[in-house]
Amino acid sequence: MDRQIDELHRRAATRPEVIGLAGGLPALDLMPRAELARALAEVAASREALQYGWPEGDARLRTWIASRLATRGADVAPERVIVTAGAQQALAIAGALLATRTIAVGDATYPGALAALAGAGARIVASGGDARYLIEAVSNPHGVAPVDREELLATDGTLIVDEAYVELRFDGRVPRPLLADAPDRVWHVGTISKTISPGLRIGWLVPPPAHHAAALEVKRAADLQTSSVAQAALARLIATLDYDALLARARAVYAARARILVAALRRYLPSLRFAEPEGGMAVWLETEDHGDEIALVRTALEEGVMFDPGSAFRPVARSSLALRLGYATAPPGRLAEGIRRLALALARWRA
Amino acid sequence: MDRQIDELHRRAATRPEVIGLAGGLPALDLMPRAELARALAEVAASREALQYGWPEGDARLRTWIASRLATRGADVAPERVIVTAGAQQALAIAGALLATRTIAVGDATYPGALAALAGAGARIVASGGDARYLIEAVSNPHGVAPVDREELLATDGTLIVDEAYVELRFDGRVPRPLLADAPDRVWHVGTISKTISPGLRIGWLVPPPAHHAAALEVKRAADLQTSSVAQAALARLIATLDYDALLARARAVYAARARILVAALRRYLPSLRFAEPEGGMAVWLETEDHGDEIALVRTALEEGVMFDPGSAFRPVARSSLALRLGYATAPPGRLAEGIRRLALALARWRA
Repeated sequence: MDRQIDELHRRAATRPEVIGLAGGLPALDLMPRAELARALAEVAASREALQYGWPEGDARLRTWIASRLATRGADVAPERVIVTAGAQQALAIAGALLATRTIAVGDATYPGALAALAGAGARIVASGGDARYLIEAVSNPHGVAPVDREELLATDGTLIVDEAYVELRFDGRVPRPLLADAPDRVWHVGTISKTISPGLRIGWLVPPPAHHAAALEVKRAADLQTSSVAQAALARLIATLDYDALLARARAVYAARARILVAALRRYLPSLRFAEPEGGMAVWLETEDHGDEIALVRTALEEGVMFDPGSAFRPVARSSLALRLGYATAPPGRLAEGIRRLALALARWRA
Repeated sequence: MDRQIDELHRRAATRPEVIGLAGGLPALDLMPRAELARALAEVAASREALQYGWPEGDARLRTWIASRLATRGADVAPERVIVTAGAQQALAIAGALLATRTIAVGDATYPGALAALAGAGARIVASGGDARYLIEAVSNPHGVAPVDREELLATDGTLIVDEAYVELRFDGRVPRPLLADAPDRVWHVGTISKTISPGLRIGWLVPPPAHHAAALEVKRAADLQTSSVAQAALARLIATLDYDALLARARAVYAARARILVAALRRYLPSLRFAEPEGGMAVWLETEDHGDEIALVRTALEEGVMFDPGSAFRPVARSSLALRLGYATAPPGRLAEGIRRLALALARWRA
């Protein structure tokens, strides 16, 4: 990550008057806090929470993950699931085993995926390549569905399919897992970070069967296993949680916040191009501006608003600026004011 | 890890009648379970436990780690400490940044270090090389202090210093951190897994200052950050825990269990060579036997005892067999019976 941007983000985080439109943090008030606290309290002193476990993770979690995939049409044995430290570690494990590949990621994508895949040694390109990374159903940062699944399935390349936002489309449509139709070449990645809590650091990887043993050894070498405490608490939580009801509520709340942000953009920045988000937590703005991106972030911070500058999402640098604006964590009543401040910052920066 | 050994370990773990002398698990009854449960319950619903945090980890933990190093003579700013998912991840991060090196590890060492360092690409040797990995104060698997610190400091190579057992010498002597005397070439690795709980998956890395920024980026790419829940609970715990009293108790208990195991070895396997452990959780037995190691493990399992076969600890294969016998988790009253069964297994296997 760019150190100057990192520094500005950290500065913004210490100033409560700054309206935060940066970061992929889910809304704290949508997390099942009371239920999770109860689950943690129940498992806290147990052997399963405090002792070492197996590298593949808790069998109850793997069964839950497999059963949710089965509901969507993918017949995956729990033995194929590896519990990881968030989707990020799943991407890092896939990256380690695809290090010799050229991976296409599109014009912009999740910066953590760029770091995980390139960090392992893979060559990252916008298009082409012999492997492809995509964020299913709701692309990050675009906020809309990625390319056509028929087109994807017509190719025969390796697919790294990140389902971080798959259940957070506002229309509630959850696609059939690509894993179901291309089991031998899909590296399936999922997480509860955007719905239950990112602080647990729990995600999963379903590698192609031929790579399962190698992926498990990479996981073991990386950190032995995912936190027993976090896994035990989550296993306890999902035994009673109505996860579909939680998802329905999150979709409704994020959709309402997205509408506020979109309306504010149309009011304060009517000339900027963007697609209305179909799900997730952010809007992606493409501008025809060129210039010093860090200066724009600094100016925005002076105006009291923070956003994610687009360059971090780009596999290949572009001279035109882009911005990702998140609506998940700022108070909804402050979102329009955040966009007003951003418009002021853009005007000052252009001048 | 060898799949057949892994399979036998898993089988042993499901059979309560098997006396377990395998694995590096600390004793559950020495963990501060009630205090940790209280700490978890207190933080469970908080923002700090459930939301994303910074990749370097919780500032209170980093301050605590730095202050304990300061007490031992190493002046380390908390800003230099990176909280990791156990010592294992600290080793993996060091490995990723030392991937072009040849790392000497001695005749036998912690298998997880071999996996983390070799997995990243480093060449692993027993001696020589331009870097060295050592387990300070109580070597694993040997159970005794590694080579002389004057000799180590006289060289100018990179040192990866794993302090997993550093505070678990039975004599209570905790050495001055090598970090204090060679700050620019020591990758310092620590953990609370052997004293508080491995299930939290919390360790730390203090990389040489010139590598700090790169190490933090590797950590971020690996899993974004260590579990917020685990970090928040540990930060709460250490605010009130008497950690030195906990260490003193652990030393006394492990020393007593070591004495039982040593006495049983002298009784049932008097011809085998071993060094009496000076700390930690295991005895390392070198034999003059040659033959099928997996068959020995299988025979031991039939006799109702499980151990760690030596080959997993070897950077370079040897034909003579070795065994690591742990005394931390089996009921103390069953340790002698475990060795009696092991002697039977060895006799059957030799026949």
